[in-house]
Amino acid sequence: MNTLSYAILGLIDKDQLTGYDLTKIFNDCVADFWSAKQSQIYTELKKLVAEELIEFKVVIQGEVLEKKIYSLTPKGKETLLSWMSEEEPPLPQSKDIFKLRLYFSENLSPKQLQEKFENRSKAVFALLLRYQTKLNEYCPETVASQSAGDYLLLKGAVTSLESQLRWLEESLDFLNKLRK
Amino acid sequence: MNTLSYAILGLIDKDQLTGYDLTKIFNDCVADFWSAKQSQIYTELKKLVAEELIEFKVVIQGEVLEKKIYSLTPKGKETLLSWMSEEEPPLPQSKDIFKLRLYFSENLSPKQLQEKFENRSKAVFALLLRYQTKLNEYCPETVASQSAGDYLLLKGAVTSLESQLRWLEESLDFLNKLRK
Repeated sequence: MNTLSYAILGLIDKDQLTGYDLTKIFNDCVADFWSAKQSQIYTELKKLVAEELIEFKVVIQGEVLEKKIYSLTPKGKETLLSWMSEEEPPLPQSKDIFKLRLYFSENLSPKQLQEKFENRSKAVFALLLRYQTKLNEYCPETVASQSAGDYLLLKGAVTSLESQLRWLEESLDFLNKLRK
Repeated sequence: MNTLSYAILGLIDKDQLTGYDLTKIFNDCVADFWSAKQSQIYTELKKLVAEELIEFKVVIQGEVLEKKIYSLTPKGKETLLSWMSEEEPPLPQSKDIFKLRLYFSENLSPKQLQEKFENRSKAVFALLLRYQTKLNEYCPETVASQSAGDYLLLKGAVTSLESQLRWLEESLDFLNKLRK
């Protein structure tokens, strides 16, 4: 079992879902800390059915369209719980080409550097707005246990992007002064 | 050419290096934003020599030990500069099992949750100390252009880890209150 399959079990445990629902969730709600392509998701669904960790019922939509709605089996719930209680792995390592280029920034002209910082800031700002909008849908006083993780992860993403924006601003200032 | 090979060109451009030096740098200085295994590094070095982007001289160390010291060729420098000026890719996506489990936190007991947060905080704090120690070696007023990237990236890592620690504390508080 890879991590993606546990992620799918966890999502199906929250709610009965179709493959399409799952793909949407991976592109949206969990994108900040996990990613998966549609083809990977469908491959895993088949495996999880074969292993009897999930099952599905076929629902007819409209006149001809069939869709499979997946739910967890007791064995699937057990497998999810056992994975949840495993020890945490080491801190994840990220790979970031922008930072790599900044490490070699003596090779960039002030104009090139400025452009790179502006593009990065724009990208960070756009993502921040997206998460901030979703976070605003929550009222901290009424967050239910089921959505507490979602709320906290959104808060974490917003905090992290805000601090990244400040760092980008300060860093560009620093580099501009250094080169004067 | 993959990103690792450009990373190697950039590092050799900063200073003439052996494969051993490069491995050390990947495990230490650039670990926050790029990672590579020793075997990958040595494979890339061979390729970069074959492509005439780097060259080496053999130096005898002690009585028998030979080591290869790599430097950039003019073609290598050109290749590095051309990659440096490329447009930035989209924001990198990270995968984080801790956050994934937090998203499913309704499946964890208060004790399990507490343990997970404590372990994560310990790991973040240990890394923060390591980066903070390295950052303290810099005096912001005298940072040279060649090490400006290193200094700013360390500052970015420290800022980000500090904000992560605060978020971990606040999140655990929030979850504990929610479950009371």
